[in-house]
This record gives sequence, structure tokens and C-alpha cells, in this order.
Amino acid sequence: MRFNAAHRVHNPALSDAENSAIFGKCNNPNWHGHNYTLDVSVEGGVDAGTGYVCDLSKLKDIVEREIIDRVDHKNFNLDVAFMEGVIPTSENIVLAFWKILESKVRPGRLTRLVLWETENNYVEYAGN
Amino acid sequence: MRFNAAHRVHNPALSDAENSAIFGKCNNPNWHGHNYTLDVSVEGGVDAGTGYVCDLSKLKDIVEREIIDRVDHKNFNLDVAFMEGVIPTSENIVLAFWKILESKVRPGRLTRLVLWETENNYVEYAGN
Amino acid sequence: MRFNAAHRVHNPALSDAENSAIFGKCNNPNWHGHNYTLDVSVEGGVDAGTGYVCDLSKLKDIVEREIIDRVDHKNFNLDVAFMEGVIPTSENIVLAFWKILESKVRPGRLTRLVLWETENNYVEYAGN
Amino acid sequence: MRFNAAHRVHNPALSDAENSAIFGKCNNPNWHGHNYTLDVSVEGGVDAGTGYVCDLSKLKDIVEREIIDRVDHKNFNLDVAFMEGVIPTSENIVLAFWKILESKVRPGRLTRLVLWETENNYVEYAGN
Amino acid sequence: MRFNAAHRVHNPALSDAENSAIFGKCNNPNWHGHNYTLDVSVEGGVDAGTGYVCDLSKLKDIVEREIIDRVDHKNFNLDVAFMEGVIPTSENIVLAFWKILESKVRPGRLTRLVLWETENNYVEYAGN
Amino acid sequence: MRFNAAHRVHNPALSDAENSAIFGKCNNPNWHGHNYTLDVSVEGGVDAGTGYVCDLSKLKDIVEREIIDRVDHKNFNLDVAFMEGVIPTSENIVLAFWKILESKVRPGRLTRLVLWETENNYVEYAGN
Repeated sequence: MRFNAAHRVHNPALSDAENSAIFGKCNNPNWHGHNYTLDVSVEGGVDAGTGYVCDLSKLKDIVEREIIDRVDHKNFNLDVAFMEGVIPTSENIVLAFWKILESKVRPGRLTRLVLWETENNYVEYAGN
Repeated sequence: MRFNAAHRVHNPALSDAENSAIFGKCNNPNWHGHNYTLDVSVEGGVDAGTGYVCDLSKLKDIVEREIIDRVDHKNFNLDVAFMEGVIPTSENIVLAFWKILESKVRPGRLTRLVLWETENNYVEYAGN
Repeated sequence: MRFNAAHRVHNPALSDAENSAIFGKCNNPNWHGHNYTLDVSVEGGVDAGTGYVCDLSKLKDIVEREIIDRVDHKNFNLDVAFMEGVIPTSENIVLAFWKILESKVRPGRLTRLVLWETENNYVEYAGN
Repeated sequence: MRFNAAHRVHNPALSDAENSAIFGKCNNPNWHGHNYTLDVSVEGGVDAGTGYVCDLSKLKDIVEREIIDRVDHKNFNLDVAFMEGVIPTSENIVLAFWKILESKVRPGRLTRLVLWETENNYVEYAGN
Repeated sequence: MRFNAAHRVHNPALSDAENSAIFGKCNNPNWHGHNYTLDVSVEGGVDAGTGYVCDLSKLKDIVEREIIDRVDHKNFNLDVAFMEGVIPTSENIVLAFWKILESKVRPGRLTRLVLWETENNYVEYAGN
Repeated sequence: MRFNAAHRVHNPALSDAENSAIFGKCNNPNWHGHNYTLDVSVEGGVDAGTGYVCDLSKLKDIVEREIIDRVDHKNFNLDVAFMEGVIPTSENIVLAFWKILESKVRPGRLTRLVLWETENNYVEYAGN
């Protein structure tokens, strides 16, 4: 699943100088953005009647409704309710996505989220 | 060459309602962003002494200095001087890049710019 | 734009032996299939009001409605009316797509179709 | 390893209406197809004499002979003996591949199979 | 078509210091190497009997026999007869490939060769 | 992280005939080469002040300084001190990289290295 969003990596508890020193160009006050790619893995047994672990088109609908529609072409710092008060790094975005998706994909068991911020950088989370 | 930037596709000569109708979610007032990929083609004869049409590492330095350093992790509407007063669509971005690069790559002849906004959408310009 | 389809490269005017000799495993009577990728290029001037050559989301809707909905998860030999009586090679598929799209993308000018049958094989058509 | 195949996701124990409701367009009676990609992982110690865990060109030959030659340009429902009586979802295909490959790659230990049906959908199996 | 090869970009008519100044790390005396990708385009009418411009599996055999078998896992400076006395830049490699392939693909008309040295750098040649 | 290098898979303890039999064309005495891709994974908790597990731009600097600068455009058999006396297979290269990186990425915990020799072949190491 892909979406495009703007963000600014910024910790409001720190001064502007500290933010700039820690986050460098990712702290640009006028935002920058990415084409994010999200990879969602769900684990389970193969259903004898369908041959599916889960119906991927239904899984896609869930991720589209619960995640993509709420973040695509949005600003993570200003437009996304579930990111309020959180520094929008890929790590924190993935943790927020996990909280949302974990219950929605049941009875499938969410086992891994991978979020690509660029084609070279990704964060992987497998629950704790 | 890759860079990340935020933008808002918006025509200030139109009303908010018109902008929203024309540009849809690309008009989000709080910005969104992309991982852009820029493909630069330069044409010429093969130099007998080097076997090169042009030295790609020098070409890379030129594009980095003239383009990437001025747009990477920036906001096309607010941070980029050469985009002032222009709607930052891929079409207009490519035209602006062309004006900048055309003279800088000489004696090579700039023959094509391709700008990928996402892995599915691109604009190609070959001069006029 | 991507779609998945089955086909059999087969010329009914030839014998089974001739078909097998010419088309090899692509002639399998029980079909085989591909994830096709279609790349559509439209040329034109940049509109001053929008900064667009054409609205890519509208272009996407056109290609989706005119092409993808009629071939996705289909069999080119049995299910696709506009391929009737034509050997469904990538060459012939692209020619058929061109005939359909050329008028639909106006006032944009269709300039190139590229159809990838696999990530290694593609056919490119630029009109005649 | 890549191969192209046709299939129809269909459970003969169910009615046509039930099949259509469950499997949607993947149930098209005239088949559709994919460019499948199979990723095979084998685990083991590094051999001191060769510096290899296993000789990848030999592993490639095994997968080619045992899997690719039997499914490439084939129809999973009609042409593939080891899929007889099984709904040809990616899950069931991967399970069948695992049964075949597990003993053939010894003394290497098969640790993971990933089957990509499209560039967006994959099934991963690590044994049980 | 892909192949792996070593090379050293070096002009024997120049001093070591000049070579190092011009070619930088590509001049490493102990070689370095690449996974090259070669994209071959052949133009022609669609044959009514086959639906093909040319049979891609035959084209693949030609490129494999004429090019890949002679350069794969080779050293462009030492192992490849048709590159003797030529600085093995991508530009010169492509020109040499063109001379070889042009007549072999007839009656198809060779229209473009693209050689990727890395996923970011390529040379394109369309004849003169 | 990407780098280009030459190598020859060769065990000096074996005869030329044995080397050729075992390693095939990878044993070419005049070297061949690859565009390698290295994927580095570091695990840890999310820092509350930064929202990062680790600062990827710092991690990138570490990998660039400790690995890329020492192998890019080099010959693994002749130019790389830490590979001396080791057959330069991907397996052995990854083990050597692990030894170097493990302490440098602390307090992050190195959890996985994946080295792609071509887009089809990779070695994955997760420590022991």
C-alpha cells in the first residue's frame, strides 16, 4: 500500500537550535514529504474452504480504510488525529499503525509492519 | 537523482472551492510530499581520450549543486526561489529544472528530463 | 496501470504442430498468464490555469474504464471483445489499446504506449 | 526465480455463486494469470573449502528442475500434477513447493519460501 | 539481459596520474565490476501470421549468443576480443554491441540499445 | 547502501582444475564484478526525545566510513585488508562486515545484514 504525505521531524519540547542539530534537514519548518510504502503481514492457518490465510482483497480494504484514507496526501503533524503529540518519525508512525491494525485484521494475527520512507530507508516492527 | 519535497498544487488566482475541485487531494492546505526521482539525459559524441560522452560523476555534481541542494527536503511553494509564482506541478518543476540545467551541462546537450513524482506518474520533457 | 490476464499465443489458421513450433510454451492449450504493466504517455502544452498537460487522475480514470476494467483478470482469447479474431501477442494488444485510447485522451495527444508482459519483455508503440 | 502461469481460484465443493462471492474476479471461469516470483532461502554453515552455505547455481538448477519446469507457462488447475485437488491460491502453491523442495535442497535446510503473485501481494512460509 | 563483468576505465595513452585525475576510482588498477543490464529494441511491422514484430525468444537467443556469452563474468579489458584497444566505458561498450547486433537481428531493425552500469547510470544509443 | 567491486571466487588451497569445477565462471582469473547492495538492520527501543531507534543518517555515515569507503570500486581479493585470506563469497563478505559493524552501531543492536550480489541472489545473516 502506498501513500504520499508531508511531515516535519520536530520535538516541541526542544529549542529550534536543538531540533535543527538533531534532525537536520528533516526539521525544515516548511515541511517536506515522502511516497511511503507500507507492507502488512498477517499470519494464520490456511482455511480449507478458501485456500486463504486471509482474503488479501479484504485485508487491502481494511488497510485502505483504517490507514491510507487517513494519511494519504496529508500532513502527519497537522492532519492526522492519531499522530497528535507524537514526533512523526517512521518508528512512531509504524507503532501508531500497529495499534490501529492489530484488532482490525482479526482473526488474522498481525505479525509485521514494514514502512518504507524512501526506497533506501525502512522501519520494521513485529510487535513486542 | 532523488530528493524529497513537500508541495501543494494550488492556483492562487482561483477560489478555494475551484482549487479543490480541480486539484482534489493534491490541494491539501497543509501540504503533502513525494520522493521525486529525476532522470537527466545529455547527448553528444564520444570523446576519444576518455571514452565518455560526458563524465557522469561531474554531471551528477552539477545536478546535485544546481537542483538537488535547492529542493531536497524543501517545500516547493515556500522554499524554492525559482518556483516562485508557479504552480508546483511536475510539469512546471521540470520546465524550471530544464531552464537551469540547459546551460550548466554544456558542452553536453540536454536532451531529456524525466521527473517521477511516484513510481506510477512521471513527466518527460525534451525541450521544444 | 497494472492488470493480470491469461492468454494463449495461437494462430487458428495454422495447425497445432505449426503453432507449437512457432510459439513454443506460449502456445500451451490450457493458457498461461501475466501481470501486465501499461505505460500511457500523452503530450501537450502546459495549461496556465492548472500547470498540467493533462490531469493524471482523469487520465487514470480513462485508462481504468476503457482498458483495465475490460481486461483485468480476464482471458484475452475468450473474454475480451476487442481482441476477437486477433492473436493476443503484446504487439496486437498494444495496437488494440491504441485504437481505443487515442480518441478518449483528447485533447491530449497519445504519443506512446508501452506494455510490459514481464519485467524483461515489453512492446512500445508510438503510432504510425 | 520467475515463472508465468494461469489459474482460477475456485473451490469445486461450493456452488458457482458461492465461489463468485468468495473469490470475486479471481474466480473468472476463463482463467487469468500472473508473473510469479519465488524466493527460496536455505540455511546452513559456511563451508570452509568453498565459502558457500550452498552453491547458488546448483540451488537454482534444483528449483528450475523441480518447480519452474513443471509450472512455467502452465495452468495450475489443469496442468500441474502436484496441485491436483487443491485450490491454487498462493498459500497452497507455496505449501506444495515446500513439500517438494524440502528434501531436494539437503543438506541445506529450507527456511523460507516467499511467493509473489503480483508486486504487491506475497505469501511467506517458514515451515511449521 | 543481465551480465556481470569487471573493468577498469583507463586510457593507456595517458600517464597514471592523468588517468587517475580523469577517471577517479573507476581507474582502480585492480579492477572493479558491475551487474550490467542491456535493453535491446528492435523495430518492425507486426507479422500477420505470428502477431510478432520479432520472436522475443529468438531475439533473446541472439543477444545471449552474440553478447552475453562473450562478456558475462569476464573482464572487459582483458577477456573480450571485440573491446581490444578501446576504453571500456559504457559508451564504448554500447557502440561495440551495436556493431555486433545490428546485422544479427535482421530483418528486424535495431533501434535502441540501453546499457545500465548501475541502477542510476545508463547510456542510450539509437544509431547515427 | 550500494557499492561496486570486482572479485574472483577462488580457493588457493585447491588446484586450478578443482577451482574451475567448483566455482565455474565465478572463478574467471581475470575477475568479474557486481553492483552489491547491503541492507543493514539495527534494533532497539524508540527514543522518546527523538522518536528514533537510531538516527539513520548517522547509521549511514557509519556504514559508509566502515564498509563502503573500503570496498567501493575495489577488488575483494587484492584491495580489501579485512578479506585477506578469505574466499570472497557473499557469505564470507557478510561475516566480515558483521564483525566490523557490530560494535560500531552500538548502542543499537545489529540484527541482520543482507547482501545482494545480483538482484536475484542474496545472503542474509542474523548473527549466531
